[in-house]
Amino acid sequence: MAQRIAVIAGDGIGTEVMPEGVRALEAAAKRFNLDLDFHTFDFGSCDYYLEHGQMLPNDWFEQLKGFDALFYGAVGWPDTVPDHISLWGSLLQFRRQFDQYINLRPCKLMPGIKSPLAGREPGDIDFYVVRENTEGEYSSVGGKMFEGTEREVVMQETVMTRTGVDRVLKYAFDLAQTRPRKKLTSATKSNGISITMPYWDERVAEMAKQYPDVAVDKFHIDILTANFVLHPDWFDVVVGSNLFGDILSDLGPACTGTIGIAPSANINPEGNFPSLFEPVHGSAPDIAGKGIANPIGQIWSGAMMLEHLGHQDAAKAMVDAIEAVLAEGDADVLTRDIGGQGTTESLGKAIAERI
Amino acid sequence: MAQRIAVIAGDGIGTEVMPEGVRALEAAAKRFNLDLDFHTFDFGSCDYYLEHGQMLPNDWFEQLKGFDALFYGAVGWPDTVPDHISLWGSLLQFRRQFDQYINLRPCKLMPGIKSPLAGREPGDIDFYVVRENTEGEYSSVGGKMFEGTEREVVMQETVMTRTGVDRVLKYAFDLAQTRPRKKLTSATKSNGISITMPYWDERVAEMAKQYPDVAVDKFHIDILTANFVLHPDWFDVVVGSNLFGDILSDLGPACTGTIGIAPSANINPEGNFPSLFEPVHGSAPDIAGKGIANPIGQIWSGAMMLEHLGHQDAAKAMVDAIEAVLAEGDADVLTRDIGGQGTTESLGKAIAERI
Ligand SMILES: CC(C)[C@H](C(=O)O)[C@@H](O)C(=O)O
Ligand SMILES: CC(C)[C@H](C(=O)O)[C@@H](O)C(=O)O
Repeated sequence: MAQRIAVIAGDGIGTEVMPEGVRALEAAAKRFNLDLDFHTFDFGSCDYYLEHGQMLPNDWFEQLKGFDALFYGAVGWPDTVPDHISLWGSLLQFRRQFDQYINLRPCKLMPGIKSPLAGREPGDIDFYVVRENTEGEYSSVGGKMFEGTEREVVMQETVMTRTGVDRVLKYAFDLAQTRPRKKLTSATKSNGISITMPYWDERVAEMAKQYPDVAVDKFHIDILTANFVLHPDWFDVVVGSNLFGDILSDLGPACTGTIGIAPSANINPEGNFPSLFEPVHGSAPDIAGKGIANPIGQIWSGAMMLEHLGHQDAAKAMVDAIEAVLAEGDADVLTRDIGGQGTTESLGKAIAERI
Repeated sequence: MAQRIAVIAGDGIGTEVMPEGVRALEAAAKRFNLDLDFHTFDFGSCDYYLEHGQMLPNDWFEQLKGFDALFYGAVGWPDTVPDHISLWGSLLQFRRQFDQYINLRPCKLMPGIKSPLAGREPGDIDFYVVRENTEGEYSSVGGKMFEGTEREVVMQETVMTRTGVDRVLKYAFDLAQTRPRKKLTSATKSNGISITMPYWDERVAEMAKQYPDVAVDKFHIDILTANFVLHPDWFDVVVGSNLFGDILSDLGPACTGTIGIAPSANINPEGNFPSLFEPVHGSAPDIAGKGIANPIGQIWSGAMMLEHLGHQDAAKAMVDAIEAVLAEGDADVLTRDIGGQGTTESLGKAIAERI
């Protein structure tokens, strides 16, 4: 039976990298005889918002919930729609309503890509960031008082539930157990954020008792970002709150050369709802429309999607193809962010052919 | 008339680098004929806590408020006192009660120091992080409900006031105006943190109107950390909330080689209360007791203190001495974090002699 995939390109370079993501998936489907059924939607974009006054139709949940997976590009066009409106009206709704409580983001220095960090080679940086994806600092509780006056005060609650914290920790510990080094690093800031973060630490300590074979350490987020730069080889699985995971999963890929290649999976592990796969990068208004965006983040996200859908071989073939094309290093093929003069299409096609 | 300086060494390497900080200040005082009067306090440390059950005596405010400046080492010893207790019981009290609402932290790649970033030379990285230092994410509002049960929920408020936001922005814009590039970057996360951060952006836009000569841009904190690594040369003055400023002022110094050399000033610009000067690094339990901690963060903080107290020449002589000793690069003098085999004392003495 066909697996149904909802395709939402979004804004900016999202609309440019998405065709390459689909191209690579179709190549993998052909080679591995997969039955993938793509449905394209125009909502979840700022254009849709400008026309309809909202980012999604009222029945988006009904329209999407039956899909096997969502394949997303990037969303946001701050010149016309403020970011918090476009994001809270689309991506952040999907994550929350479909209870995609795991955001999984690999950081891996690939062959042929130059790390901005001196002397780092492929193999030196290879870890996962596991990010809580539904609560924490991304909350909808708060407001303003004395608006427009000198006394104006604005508040926003960080909310952590035991359920929310424990399930992401469990996922991260389970993942650490499957890795050769079996190491888990927790991102905290319990010295300064004095209520939620000590709670996070408590739950980590509690969960650690059930994983005696996993080596656990923790760093405050400030020094942790420093250590990403100074000692990226220390890390194996890094788990963090919604905000800390967000930061670390941009910084980590930057240390591996470019965030243009970084993929992510927004997972509902129980499979009650579709999971969502999207590159880490945003809609990048500064380079949109030029056809020079790197499509690897989108393609690699497609590989994570196939893995999630049970097609390990096809997923591996996609990642292998990415690695092979990067290792080849043909400047006419590669995009500018990784040292080439190619286009989104030239790089996307090269990878699809390889698959 | 003598300027009175309260010296609080704190914990761990704080007690090791402090004597070198004082040594350098005494050398500067001698050369420039300054009348500095040091008073040492044993409170504000975990040892004090273990003896007295609190980090500070009840009358700390009275004892300290008449000083011209506070010179602090580092605080925290998590094996015996949880970090949120030691920090909220000392440093964070000083910052808040003495209304030190500016935390100013220079990030500068010094001669002789190797950046972990490939190909970066002195001159390539030279910016200030201006951090809000009294409110924001470091709040004391929040709590727990359904404690100890599966329904447990923990909340902590981020609090921003117009007064609090505007005054740190004003300081940052004023600072940008004094710099050749006149550039200000605002750290935000208004796409995800949907109430407080859009407010921050609004106030930045409002303040910018009064500084038409300052070039302003903003980045979400996730991509901003990536850009610190990929394009550190983009930055001149970076302003952020309490948490974002905290992160950026560890990451920035890491990009300049080591956080061991980074200084900071916690300033009450009006001079209603003493300002506080401390290295960016913490008490570093992992290397404490070995005499190998880098004293430059402490010494450079001393230079910032002299500048604040009106002794520009003496401050400059201290920074020049640091640069000279680093440029010389004598491995017997330098500490391990910057490639030498020296000790806290060898490096401290070399700098004091230079002054
Ligand atoms: C020790 C800690 C509470 C402190 C902070 O987060 O403010 C430190 O990291 C700093 O940057 O001064
Ligand atoms: C666009 C933004 C709301 C989003 C986030 O912060 O979650 C993005 O940065 C990401 O990492 O997926």
